Amino acid sequence: MSPPRHISDSAVRRLSHYQRLLEDLEAAGVATVSSDDLAERGGMTSAQVRKDLSHFGSFGKRGLGYPVAELRARLREILGLDRRWRVALVGAGRLGSALFQYEGFRRQGFDVVAVFDVDARKIGLRWDGVAVDDVADLAAVVAEREVRMGIVTTPAAAAQEVADALVEAGVEAILNFAPRTLEVPAAVTLRDVNLVVELESLTFALTHRGRIVTTR
Amino acid sequence: MSPPRHISDSAVRRLSHYQRLLEDLEAAGVATVSSDDLAERGGMTSAQVRKDLSHFGSFGKRGLGYPVAELRARLREILGLDRRWRVALVGAGRLGSALFQYEGFRRQGFDVVAVFDVDARKIGLRWDGVAVDDVADLAAVVAEREVRMGIVTTPAAAAQEVADALVEAGVEAILNFAPRTLEVPAAVTLRDVNLVVELESLTFALTHRGRIVTTR
Repeated sequence: MSPPRHISDSAVRRLSHYQRLLEDLEAAGVATVSSDDLAERGGMTSAQVRKDLSHFGSFGKRGLGYPVAELRARLREILGLDRRWRVALVGAGRLGSALFQYEGFRRQGFDVVAVFDVDARKIGLRWDGVAVDDVADLAAVVAEREVRMGIVTTPAAAAQEVADALVEAGVEAILNFAPRTLEVPAAVTLRDVNLVVELESLTFALTHRGRIVTTR
Repeated sequence: MSPPRHISDSAVRRLSHYQRLLEDLEAAGVATVSSDDLAERGGMTSAQVRKDLSHFGSFGKRGLGYPVAELRARLREILGLDRRWRVALVGAGRLGSALFQYEGFRRQGFDVVAVFDVDARKIGLRWDGVAVDDVADLAAVVAEREVRMGIVTTPAAAAQEVADALVEAGVEAILNFAPRTLEVPAAVTLRDVNLVVELESLTFALTHRGRIVTTR
C-alpha cells in the first residue's frame, strides 16, 4: 500500500508514540507485539493501531503480531529518524537552555549545532562546546553549519522577526515555543508548542471527570 | 445537545486552539466569526470546526457566524479555565525554572504555588516569592496549599517516585516532562509532554515534503 496523500497531525504523533513504545519493547528483548498489546500500552484502540500502521505498508503476519525491531526501523524511516538533523536554537534564555540540555534530542538524532541570542552578556558563552552567536550573524552561521531546522524560544515580541530570519537563511522547518502565532511561507513547516494547551487538557479532564472519557 | 461521553485528546487540543484564536479575535474587537474564517485561521476544515463545537451546544445563528465573546466564554468553561488552578512543580532545574516563568501559565489561570527539589543547594531559594521546598515535605505542602495539579520536570530516574508522592498527596492531574512512561492510578489524569515528538512531526513533514500533506 502506498503512503497516504494526507495525514493528520495527531496520526503523526501516534507514529512517534508507537516508535517509542517499540523502543522500550526492543530494549526489553521483546521480538513481536500484537496490535492489542501495543494499543493497551499506548492507550488507544487496537483498530486505531492497525489503521495507522496499515497506511505505511503491511507489517507482521496475521495472528503472529508485529516484528518489533523491523516495525520500529520502518517507523524511524517514516518519521525521518534514520538520519541526524542539524538544528539552530534562537533564544538562549531558560527555556532555550533547558531544551539545549534535553536528554531526548540528541538520542533521537537532533543535534543543536547553533545557538543565537541578542543579549551581549550571552553572546560568546559556550554551551557544551556550542558558542552562543549574535542573532545578527544568523544567516551566515546557519548556512555554514548546514542547519535545516530552527527552534524559537524568544519572547513573543521577537519571534516573528526571528522566524523571518530563519526562513531567509534557508531553514525549512521551525518549532515555535514563543506564545504567539507566526507566519511563514507555505514551503516552510511550522509547529507551535503551546505549553498551556497541555495544562488545558488536564483541566478539561478534571472538569468533566466521570462524565467524559478522553482517548488518545 | 448534551456533551459527548468520549472525546479524543486531539479534539480537546482543538478546543484549546479555538479558545486562543477567539481570544485574539476578541482582543481585535471582532464580534462574530464564521466557521470558515475560524478554520482558515486554525489550519483545519470548517466542517471540523462545526463538528467540534456542535458537541458542546448550539452556538451562533446560521449565516451569522459565531458570537466571539460568548463562544470564547463557553469554551473557557468547557476547558475548566473559568477558575484558577493551584499547581505544584517538582524539579527545580532549568526546565522547571523555564516553566515557572512561562508567561502563558498565569494568564490562563495556572498558579504555581509550590516548587520542590531534592538538591540542598536549591531548597530554600525563593522563586518570585515561592520557596523551593524539600521534596520530602511534598505531602504536607501540597495539602496545606490545596494543590490539585502537578508538573514533573525531574530527571527520568526520579519521575515515578515523584508521581507516586504527588498521587499519595492527593494531586489529581499530572503533566509529565520527564522522558519516561509513568504509571498512575486510573483516577489520576496524566499527560506526557514529549518534546521530541514535536521535532519528529517536523522531520516527518520534511521527509515526505511534496508527497504527504499534514492536517491539524
